[in-house]
Amino acid sequence: MVKVGLVGATGYTGTELLRLLSGHPQVKLTAATSRGERGRTISDVFPSLRGHVNLAYSDPAETDLSACDVVFFAAPNGTAMEAVPGLLAKGVKVIDLAADFRLKDPAQWEQWYGMPHRCSEYLHEAVYGLPELNREKIARARLIANPGCYPTSVILGLMPLLEAGIIDASQIIADAKSGVSGAGRKAEIGLLLCETAENFKAYNASRHRHQPEIAQLLSEAGGGCDIGLTFVPHLLPMIRGIHSTLYARLKPGIDMTDQDLYALYLKRYGEEPFVEVGKPGSHPDTRSVRGANLCRMSVHTPLQGRTVVILSVIDNLVKGAAGQAVQNMNLMFGFEETLGLRAPAVFP
Amino acid sequence: MVKVGLVGATGYTGTELLRLLSGHPQVKLTAATSRGERGRTISDVFPSLRGHVNLAYSDPAETDLSACDVVFFAAPNGTAMEAVPGLLAKGVKVIDLAADFRLKDPAQWEQWYGMPHRCSEYLHEAVYGLPELNREKIARARLIANPGCYPTSVILGLMPLLEAGIIDASQIIADAKSGVSGAGRKAEIGLLLCETAENFKAYNASRHRHQPEIAQLLSEAGGGCDIGLTFVPHLLPMIRGIHSTLYARLKPGIDMTDQDLYALYLKRYGEEPFVEVGKPGSHPDTRSVRGANLCRMSVHTPLQGRTVVILSVIDNLVKGAAGQAVQNMNLMFGFEETLGLRAPAVFP
Amino acid sequence: MVKVGLVGATGYTGTELLRLLSGHPQVKLTAATSRGERGRTISDVFPSLRGHVNLAYSDPAETDLSACDVVFFAAPNGTAMEAVPGLLAKGVKVIDLAADFRLKDPAQWEQWYGMPHRCSEYLHEAVYGLPELNREKIARARLIANPGCYPTSVILGLMPLLEAGIIDASQIIADAKSGVSGAGRKAEIGLLLCETAENFKAYNASRHRHQPEIAQLLSEAGGGCDIGLTFVPHLLPMIRGIHSTLYARLKPGIDMTDQDLYALYLKRYGEEPFVEVGKPGSHPDTRSVRGANLCRMSVHTPLQGRTVVILSVIDNLVKGAAGQAVQNMNLMFGFEETLGLRAPAVFP
Amino acid sequence: MVKVGLVGATGYTGTELLRLLSGHPQVKLTAATSRGERGRTISDVFPSLRGHVNLAYSDPAETDLSACDVVFFAAPNGTAMEAVPGLLAKGVKVIDLAADFRLKDPAQWEQWYGMPHRCSEYLHEAVYGLPELNREKIARARLIANPGCYPTSVILGLMPLLEAGIIDASQIIADAKSGVSGAGRKAEIGLLLCETAENFKAYNASRHRHQPEIAQLLSEAGGGCDIGLTFVPHLLPMIRGIHSTLYARLKPGIDMTDQDLYALYLKRYGEEPFVEVGKPGSHPDTRSVRGANLCRMSVHTPLQGRTVVILSVIDNLVKGAAGQAVQNMNLMFGFEETLGLRAPAVFP
Repeated sequence: MVKVGLVGATGYTGTELLRLLSGHPQVKLTAATSRGERGRTISDVFPSLRGHVNLAYSDPAETDLSACDVVFFAAPNGTAMEAVPGLLAKGVKVIDLAADFRLKDPAQWEQWYGMPHRCSEYLHEAVYGLPELNREKIARARLIANPGCYPTSVILGLMPLLEAGIIDASQIIADAKSGVSGAGRKAEIGLLLCETAENFKAYNASRHRHQPEIAQLLSEAGGGCDIGLTFVPHLLPMIRGIHSTLYARLKPGIDMTDQDLYALYLKRYGEEPFVEVGKPGSHPDTRSVRGANLCRMSVHTPLQGRTVVILSVIDNLVKGAAGQAVQNMNLMFGFEETLGLRAPAVFP
Repeated sequence: MVKVGLVGATGYTGTELLRLLSGHPQVKLTAATSRGERGRTISDVFPSLRGHVNLAYSDPAETDLSACDVVFFAAPNGTAMEAVPGLLAKGVKVIDLAADFRLKDPAQWEQWYGMPHRCSEYLHEAVYGLPELNREKIARARLIANPGCYPTSVILGLMPLLEAGIIDASQIIADAKSGVSGAGRKAEIGLLLCETAENFKAYNASRHRHQPEIAQLLSEAGGGCDIGLTFVPHLLPMIRGIHSTLYARLKPGIDMTDQDLYALYLKRYGEEPFVEVGKPGSHPDTRSVRGANLCRMSVHTPLQGRTVVILSVIDNLVKGAAGQAVQNMNLMFGFEETLGLRAPAVFP
Repeated sequence: MVKVGLVGATGYTGTELLRLLSGHPQVKLTAATSRGERGRTISDVFPSLRGHVNLAYSDPAETDLSACDVVFFAAPNGTAMEAVPGLLAKGVKVIDLAADFRLKDPAQWEQWYGMPHRCSEYLHEAVYGLPELNREKIARARLIANPGCYPTSVILGLMPLLEAGIIDASQIIADAKSGVSGAGRKAEIGLLLCETAENFKAYNASRHRHQPEIAQLLSEAGGGCDIGLTFVPHLLPMIRGIHSTLYARLKPGIDMTDQDLYALYLKRYGEEPFVEVGKPGSHPDTRSVRGANLCRMSVHTPLQGRTVVILSVIDNLVKGAAGQAVQNMNLMFGFEETLGLRAPAVFP
Repeated sequence: MVKVGLVGATGYTGTELLRLLSGHPQVKLTAATSRGERGRTISDVFPSLRGHVNLAYSDPAETDLSACDVVFFAAPNGTAMEAVPGLLAKGVKVIDLAADFRLKDPAQWEQWYGMPHRCSEYLHEAVYGLPELNREKIARARLIANPGCYPTSVILGLMPLLEAGIIDASQIIADAKSGVSGAGRKAEIGLLLCETAENFKAYNASRHRHQPEIAQLLSEAGGGCDIGLTFVPHLLPMIRGIHSTLYARLKPGIDMTDQDLYALYLKRYGEEPFVEVGKPGSHPDTRSVRGANLCRMSVHTPLQGRTVVILSVIDNLVKGAAGQAVQNMNLMFGFEETLGLRAPAVFP
């Protein structure tokens, strides 16, 4: 049994990790920290976990995580970077679900996150935890930067086109829509039901922190090419789910039908346990992945034109966060990659 | 492995059965019938089941169910009664998730369901599939009448009071609220999102078919007493979940505090795997049982008065239908009662 | 033109008042205060009011309200009581949408609201602003206690029965359900979309502040009789709307059919512009009053029994708050009662 | 008073017309037809209209509309074309809210709508009822093709850029999202709450009927230029509202900051009563136009790049259908353009 610690276990990502880990046959949860809820039984705070998680929150300041085999950080940006050197030194692996280790360039990181990076010497060791891109590196890693939710859906959707070199990388558009849980469990007016239900809007249309993360990874997928990416996030009046609608132009001289593109995606993802390519003409919906560790997608070329449209959906809390983190843990500890992650989506 | 057949596998109850059965380690699904979708792969119709259910719908008229060990009927009222004699004769057990075998009195059944009962000789053999009431009879049964969703939440909520004989059985009130999935997957104007979202209303306030079902079982719980039950169902603007708010008057001379009532309920349900009694003062919410086979409840006596208020929640598709059916199957085949039913609720 | 001031103009009740007042032909809004937003243009904070409200928020400490003809308080409990003596002394009328003047007994008020009442000498002058009960007193009043949202729907629903003296007043049940806007515009975890959408629960089932308010008014309606009221509020996964399901027992010897009760209600409310009694067998829904100053109701006696069930719906922000306040203002200033309140509900 | 007839008065567009017309001071509704509901009082079918619309549905086959001054068609495609010649011959003006007269080329129309066009000789007389583009033609027209909901939001959003000739018209992207009411009031599984709530998806991503309508109008706005338009519609889990996110590339040599673009849009729309341009950096949300005849928009150039992003929102039933139809009627009859259309949006 792998001994697991969890830092920041009261947010939506943290509770989703608790849900998934509680059903994982090779995991023993040994610590879950929360400053605000320290001392309270987890299942008192989250009754859905009664009978599944038998542990109380401990104070992060008083919790020794060095006895863990792996620690997940589901805490605000800037938290993991404080603890990483100490934990790695003691042989504890780390999976950070926040953004501390996602960008390779510390200056860029500081510009977008507005704080000094106190652990930049580990940025290059950290592996971007997208198994479909980095499976082998993940298996050998000590430190995982778990991808952002938007980036997971966008990168998986575009990777085959960039690897194949068939689109103009200078003008990619990602129109992304997320359920409200993507914004976290925070007492903010803007996240109230009365402000978000029966409503839809874009936000941060001029700049969003996930833009450089996506661009960095798309560039890698494209062999280091320059990326011109317009990324516009929107807030959906629902709890879970991300739908990214991606637009790219085929390079001059490249002719691909829907069927050709389907074949390309099938070839790329046919063996992937957690990516599913829908038939040409199909439209994945977010509910078909609700609660499941799965990215579903389909590819269209509207009116047989030269613009490729990829529809890519995930559950932001699962394949976009906690599920992907468990998938990474499975790879890091040599378990079957799908262990604890096989439950179907909850429909309707 | 138990060979399972499913009749009516395109509604919400049917698909929920498919979801639960796909994760059950002792089950092999051998047939799923649908007139409308015959010939289509189940996972093409319900993409959330891709990779979990590998079967096509078969035409009910051409499907031999006699090779099954058990057949679930998740079909309209009046369907199971046609097939039950034949199946039982061949040694196939039957679990009917519709209402054909829930009432003991055929005349009463015909009055409420508006059709002749063509199989009334089995009404007394049929066991009402509420394990918390009939566990041992279920284990020996060939034919299960799986309880209605409203009745499950109401009966479980009131049973301890009636068994203890401490309430006035002549004036019980059940104010019940259900998510829209309780109405089934039917193309009706009244079930459209634009008609049900951002809206709330009662329906069938003067008479609803679940009233006699609930009254029959409450009477049984009360040792055959007369029941005066006012049952008013309401439609919630959400997909899953039933919340029953139950009101009963303590009999003259009976004095019970919240704490006394809590003790009574704990004693009754403390060993039950799928009933959970919350502490005095607590309020169960439907999301804490979303996707889970669980009834959560708490008991209040507002302003220390003589009216007992029980709050009882279930997921109408799980403990109120498909999950309870699997629980019954587990009992009928000698499996551990919780097999395939241990996943926690999906929160948020 | 009536000069209107508004204290607390950034909550849902306050913004609804702004919406309604902006369309009122006899009103000139001269001040709207907000500590948090002082100095900002109202329509910058609430873009839906652009072109309709041309005013900036002023600091309550620096705003002289004595030039107003009437001041609405849509602020927290305890705010209006500080200002009422001064305003009344200067001839300014006051309509308080909070609870400061709703209860007649200061000791009871202090017990339920947890603070000293600093203006109890005005409790008996204050008129409870339910026009269907107190129309003439309101027309002569200087100080209005605008009813709570739950109380409005419950009292209107039960008043005809109590006035007629045909129900047992000692065991009334009010099972009430409210949209989330009833909880106000506050940054609290419990009001987030991810906590309230796809969810339903009771709250404060053992005691809620609206219980004594309702009981006081029901007693008045019943000629001073003792009231035994069990009041259980619930939270609906939607923005606007209250549905109260009310249960009462006919007194021994009283026989009333649905048709008799319909006639009783029609007689009581037939001339009321903002109460509508539906035919026997009908079920009012909250969306049919969304945005409208209207209480719709219908009466049932399930299974021809002796329990009367009243279904009563309002928009909590309109007939349950801002609309009723404008209705009161119309009466106080001799305008037609429906002025500015005639728009139909927004459907769907 | 203008005598108004309405054909197809039981859908969401038709009932919204009834709501708006009931508050219009210069309109007398003289006929509303419905085959399915003929003979029933409108307010029995739609209780929200009680007290506002006093008329019964008449059978379309038996209703003489020639006494009307204007007839609105809120009926399926192909309905208006049958009646237009007869009505125009009798001096009755027609506003068709369906698609019969939106495309100029009958062959193109037949290809997209899959039926013969039986009234193609009127296609060129028909005026596309977008007042911001065709105000004067509308004022003189007998026959109005009321724009589609998606087209209204997309065309208004892009028109200033095409008129100014500063974007590459060959690669425009419109990522559009609509509430479910845009799909109409039809008994279809796909529109049920259980299928659409807590869900998001694209549909008709390869081809949608609004694509040629939008392209035709954008071309007009661009002085007849060729348009390359990728249009992808999506279904939002809510009732009302369209949000179009529009992407265009500045032509080489054109440099425009957010502020420049804001100035351009202000100049174009500053005098429009029903278009509102938000400040640079702002994000319009659909709720801020709920129930109102208004298009709100803002313009961004993410990361100061060469891709212009326009965010454009309307209420699909108002500015996208019924409200715009009333606006057109006002112009056709010489009323003030805003008559009956001044109510603010309903928030929250």
